[in-house]
Amino acid sequence: MSKIRLGVLGGGGDSLIGVLHRVASYMYDYYEIVGGVFNPDYEENVKFAKKIGVNTDRVYKDFDEFVAVESAKPEDERVEVVSVLTPNFLHYPMAKKLLEHGFNVICEKPLTTSLEEAKTLQEIQKKNKAVFAVTYTYTGYPMVREMKEMIAKGVIGDIHKVDLQYYQGWINPVIHDKEKRSQVWRLDPKKAGISSCIGDIGTHIFNMVEYVTGSEVSELLSDLNTLYEDNPLDIDGSVLIRMDNKAKGILRASQIATGDENNITVAIFGRNGALKWEQENPNYLYLLKDDEPRRLIKPGNASYNTEVSLDGTKLPAGHPEGIFDAMGNIYRGVAKALRGENSYNGEFPTLYEGVRGMLFIEKTVESNQNGNVWVSMENQ
Amino acid sequence: MSKIRLGVLGGGGDSLIGVLHRVASYMYDYYEIVGGVFNPDYEENVKFAKKIGVNTDRVYKDFDEFVAVESAKPEDERVEVVSVLTPNFLHYPMAKKLLEHGFNVICEKPLTTSLEEAKTLQEIQKKNKAVFAVTYTYTGYPMVREMKEMIAKGVIGDIHKVDLQYYQGWINPVIHDKEKRSQVWRLDPKKAGISSCIGDIGTHIFNMVEYVTGSEVSELLSDLNTLYEDNPLDIDGSVLIRMDNKAKGILRASQIATGDENNITVAIFGRNGALKWEQENPNYLYLLKDDEPRRLIKPGNASYNTEVSLDGTKLPAGHPEGIFDAMGNIYRGVAKALRGENSYNGEFPTLYEGVRGMLFIEKTVESNQNGNVWVSMENQ
Amino acid sequence: MSKIRLGVLGGGGDSLIGVLHRVASYMYDYYEIVGGVFNPDYEENVKFAKKIGVNTDRVYKDFDEFVAVESAKPEDERVEVVSVLTPNFLHYPMAKKLLEHGFNVICEKPLTTSLEEAKTLQEIQKKNKAVFAVTYTYTGYPMVREMKEMIAKGVIGDIHKVDLQYYQGWINPVIHDKEKRSQVWRLDPKKAGISSCIGDIGTHIFNMVEYVTGSEVSELLSDLNTLYEDNPLDIDGSVLIRMDNKAKGILRASQIATGDENNITVAIFGRNGALKWEQENPNYLYLLKDDEPRRLIKPGNASYNTEVSLDGTKLPAGHPEGIFDAMGNIYRGVAKALRGENSYNGEFPTLYEGVRGMLFIEKTVESNQNGNVWVSMENQ
Amino acid sequence: MSKIRLGVLGGGGDSLIGVLHRVASYMYDYYEIVGGVFNPDYEENVKFAKKIGVNTDRVYKDFDEFVAVESAKPEDERVEVVSVLTPNFLHYPMAKKLLEHGFNVICEKPLTTSLEEAKTLQEIQKKNKAVFAVTYTYTGYPMVREMKEMIAKGVIGDIHKVDLQYYQGWINPVIHDKEKRSQVWRLDPKKAGISSCIGDIGTHIFNMVEYVTGSEVSELLSDLNTLYEDNPLDIDGSVLIRMDNKAKGILRASQIATGDENNITVAIFGRNGALKWEQENPNYLYLLKDDEPRRLIKPGNASYNTEVSLDGTKLPAGHPEGIFDAMGNIYRGVAKALRGENSYNGEFPTLYEGVRGMLFIEKTVESNQNGNVWVSMENQ
Repeated sequence: MSKIRLGVLGGGGDSLIGVLHRVASYMYDYYEIVGGVFNPDYEENVKFAKKIGVNTDRVYKDFDEFVAVESAKPEDERVEVVSVLTPNFLHYPMAKKLLEHGFNVICEKPLTTSLEEAKTLQEIQKKNKAVFAVTYTYTGYPMVREMKEMIAKGVIGDIHKVDLQYYQGWINPVIHDKEKRSQVWRLDPKKAGISSCIGDIGTHIFNMVEYVTGSEVSELLSDLNTLYEDNPLDIDGSVLIRMDNKAKGILRASQIATGDENNITVAIFGRNGALKWEQENPNYLYLLKDDEPRRLIKPGNASYNTEVSLDGTKLPAGHPEGIFDAMGNIYRGVAKALRGENSYNGEFPTLYEGVRGMLFIEKTVESNQNGNVWVSMENQ
Repeated sequence: MSKIRLGVLGGGGDSLIGVLHRVASYMYDYYEIVGGVFNPDYEENVKFAKKIGVNTDRVYKDFDEFVAVESAKPEDERVEVVSVLTPNFLHYPMAKKLLEHGFNVICEKPLTTSLEEAKTLQEIQKKNKAVFAVTYTYTGYPMVREMKEMIAKGVIGDIHKVDLQYYQGWINPVIHDKEKRSQVWRLDPKKAGISSCIGDIGTHIFNMVEYVTGSEVSELLSDLNTLYEDNPLDIDGSVLIRMDNKAKGILRASQIATGDENNITVAIFGRNGALKWEQENPNYLYLLKDDEPRRLIKPGNASYNTEVSLDGTKLPAGHPEGIFDAMGNIYRGVAKALRGENSYNGEFPTLYEGVRGMLFIEKTVESNQNGNVWVSMENQ
Repeated sequence: MSKIRLGVLGGGGDSLIGVLHRVASYMYDYYEIVGGVFNPDYEENVKFAKKIGVNTDRVYKDFDEFVAVESAKPEDERVEVVSVLTPNFLHYPMAKKLLEHGFNVICEKPLTTSLEEAKTLQEIQKKNKAVFAVTYTYTGYPMVREMKEMIAKGVIGDIHKVDLQYYQGWINPVIHDKEKRSQVWRLDPKKAGISSCIGDIGTHIFNMVEYVTGSEVSELLSDLNTLYEDNPLDIDGSVLIRMDNKAKGILRASQIATGDENNITVAIFGRNGALKWEQENPNYLYLLKDDEPRRLIKPGNASYNTEVSLDGTKLPAGHPEGIFDAMGNIYRGVAKALRGENSYNGEFPTLYEGVRGMLFIEKTVESNQNGNVWVSMENQ
Repeated sequence: MSKIRLGVLGGGGDSLIGVLHRVASYMYDYYEIVGGVFNPDYEENVKFAKKIGVNTDRVYKDFDEFVAVESAKPEDERVEVVSVLTPNFLHYPMAKKLLEHGFNVICEKPLTTSLEEAKTLQEIQKKNKAVFAVTYTYTGYPMVREMKEMIAKGVIGDIHKVDLQYYQGWINPVIHDKEKRSQVWRLDPKKAGISSCIGDIGTHIFNMVEYVTGSEVSELLSDLNTLYEDNPLDIDGSVLIRMDNKAKGILRASQIATGDENNITVAIFGRNGALKWEQENPNYLYLLKDDEPRRLIKPGNASYNTEVSLDGTKLPAGHPEGIFDAMGNIYRGVAKALRGENSYNGEFPTLYEGVRGMLFIEKTVESNQNGNVWVSMENQ
């Protein structure tokens, strides 16, 4: 079977996100990068294409040329799916045009800079049925998928409580200095939108809780912190939530959790058990039951893992996989979708999840602005 | 120096709390149990006194006799301090009468069944200056005291965020059965007061956050969960807090955290560092700093521990101490107070902390009842 | 029932071992300390007795007086059991005389300074059937007893491999300085006997492996390290072992494991499972099985713990107990033996285990001296 | 710069090792797979080439054709380096012929089936200076390289003790059944050579200890276990070692460590500190010092990591990398060697390390056969 023709926008030079997507695309031998616009500078663009072994014939001057030329190619030659790795504010216009020209899309998060934009994309995609992935990378970990599947199978019963955390400390050395904090793009509303902490990392755990539970957040009440009055955007926040499965819970996100690196924790408590996971040791999943010893679920164990996690584990038990492997599983899910081979729910995060993420950001900010009151998360 | 004459009320038979207090009183050779009322049944009472080696001459028929006879003894013979280990609703009348007769008191938590009662005790004690301890046991761990001392010394700088958790799962096997949940005393307002989860365990982490930070909670907004409509008391809750040091934070408590045993976590984030501690491995304290490797602080290390934690550690590094040792440190603090030997803040939790705990319970319930709104925690 | 009359030799002043034994004796209300010789200096002795609340009538000038006077008392008054906490070289003469006068004994380890002495004690005790405990403290942890019981019940099947470690780093700051190392009593053969590391800590894990497996070491081959030629005693060693259940294994002990505090690990591998335990987090025991998630066994869980560990756990699950509680369980085992109430194997380490420990030290040194050859561990 | 032309022998179909090497080769954009013999069956071979996107023109019928045709190509077209992923017994003849024809080689371990073969390869390579890597994958982890670099820089001072473990339990369900154990190729001397456990996994920790310490094992004494008399090969073993830096140590390997998956631990103790690492949580490295809190070193921290580990870390701190990333670093080291860009020691394991590994296997078996005696590890 021939490879899927992948185009890439952004991710050139020393871009970390570029490496992550590129390696992910290679992992299961599904994709071939056939062209793109890696850099705004054409010379750099070509140089980079050579470096990563892409034929320079399909390296374009800019996005418009990319669309024009690729669209004009016969269907069996043109790029099938495009990875959008450009700065956040470009996600929307690029994704929109790509969708309008019939390309499938893999878009970095946040999907757009506003809920309205996100919904516009959704409208278009509803019509043309393009495959559209939003790379909430953490849902690609085998043990996260194991959680989702175990919950779906009823292993822990009805869920009555959820508790998720995403704590980072990176902004701490910046935030206390007036000069420094005025210069960070993440704290500039023009560049970062209406939120820093919730927008950048809160969305990940919001997505995570809906992903693993298979339920949606129906209401929320947030308390955000900017720490200084001259700082316009939140750098920390707690969000009380109620889910449509009646569970209550709490999402906690921070960029001032001094010393924390990328400390995501997920705890889902059900009537018959609980599941706990931490991103920094992603191959360990704990199952707790009333009156039983805690169990440690690890990937690569055909005797007790679900097919879902086995499908996303490449090596035998005991060989740790990491974040590249998680993103690899998302790319794999997209590839299977393009080939009509998806076999279970949640093989990649979709446009719908991207829209939910934007709704979450807007509602969280709204709740806080209105004095920490409950707001509905119903899709409108 | 002669031993401190300790009287004990309750804690007879197979009482676990009785063992905990008794062993704690022995630990540093300060106390001698000279009498008490261990059991409501006099025969059992005497039998128990013999078992634990207490002279039966000072085993009394009931609390009133205890007070009457002991009060009448000359000052150098009478019981100096009394441990109150009886059911919660008896704490107040006993403590009140003891204070009124000039006894010093060590009282189990919760201090009383209402804030008003707690304040009444405070009024009396303000006059007679009796030593009064409320046994928030967890503050007796050396590494908790290390946290308090490190924060006081400025090791982590100004605090800007706190996150505390107390998760248990014990009520899960009970709560989902209508019959069972109607029979648990903790869910009966007549016996448990206005709260189950917040009253029993939420107060511990409330006390903890004020203890380790040296600051007070100024406002709170709570979201409590009863899970079933016919259940009158909370069995889970999240409490957003603001502290008088400007820090924001979150207290999370649950009795439906399925499979959790006694899962207390404390995380205090400051401008120059953070401290993290977990009760189930109480000899490990983590210090995090921007751009430095995380450090593991362990007790018994004269080279780097504070004097405060060294004072509460009996054996060399690597010999784990546990909850009995934590309570032992609280008894030690009381003994030093009785002898005028206290050398640092927080050697035992005082009546003031007991009153704050009752205020916390009332305000948390009030916030929830009023629709999850902010309420003040100012002492009135 | 009246308390067991306990005498104590040594352990006065600031002695840590004194605190440990004293608190342990209090823990289950079995014992009353009625007398002893806490200090060589009589004045200090009396002062100390007052401090710990012992009637000074039975505080003696020296050991000989203690034996003379106590032996002369009527049986229902005299000390029933004596804790020997004096420097190592005094263990033998004291224990011998105590046994000869019909006292029961609780003796700190190492039992004696030579195998021959140990055997002599054994000869005497065989005749008079006195209760004799050697305080290998670590076998008092509930989870260690759980291991022993689970193995006895066949949970992990026939054992085929054992791996134990006792790593400390305390001698590292001393050993590299010629002056310093010549002044440490542990490296002085006159005071420490024929071994430092193996004698002090290696014996603990030797005892542990025989304790938990219920099998004996039949042969060993050791490789010891003195690090410097002028240092006469081992400060590190690895010991290959073969057990009479056909298992092979390895015991590893060190005092130059830089930075380690009291790092004991036990791993027992059987045909149907494995058990792993670490002393510094003593309430966690791991059960591993082929093709199953690892299980975490914690104390205080009536639903799945053995009666043996439940018997030695005082509080509900999640309240960590420590080294004092471990020693408390050993004292409890002795008390039950004195009252004829022992209900399972291994409630306290006996003289036999003390003798095995001395044999182990002698044979380990012999193997090393003879060029790292196999030597038999058969009792002679 | 154009990509390095990589040929691949073996690794077709569902081969796990094939995926590992292929993804590793992609990771840093250095390589292009231009041809090879993935499968013995030609049809499968071509089919696989298509699947992974390799031009079928350079997919060959067999190894001999591969060498013949590729050798004949002009230097700027021919395959530059060949990954040998075939069954163990083919490593030697293939590597030999490849070397003789001037190809650079990346060879899976074990390098050969005997020391003699390994030395022959070494002879040839000494003459033609080809780049030759042996994929001891675990040395590719950033934190392993951090260990090596920290030791080289003297962070822990002179090393006096090493302790390494590689425990697996996979053979436990097989070994106790006579029928089953007779059918495993790893226990068949014709296929597995003279050793199972030491040959397959013991070599990894042997390589590891020489890699991180920069010193060599000078002598060893082994005790191997076959468990059953009809089983010809070791499935467990302990190896006492002495290093040329005077350190003593112990290597422990097992395939009957019931329930263990891929449990590699490394502990290096020096005069000024110690370093500890575990493969199953590979992003955590612990630094211990006398009288200081233990430090947790994590990758991606420019403020305190060495350049060596930063060079091998692709994402910011807190994004876990795994075994694929480790192998990616080895491929990167080879690529840099081919381009003359290596900047530090140990960027990939060389032929010399492969030869040392074979020597280790032979000497370990020899020591055991001769009755567990010391044998020299000097290169001859």
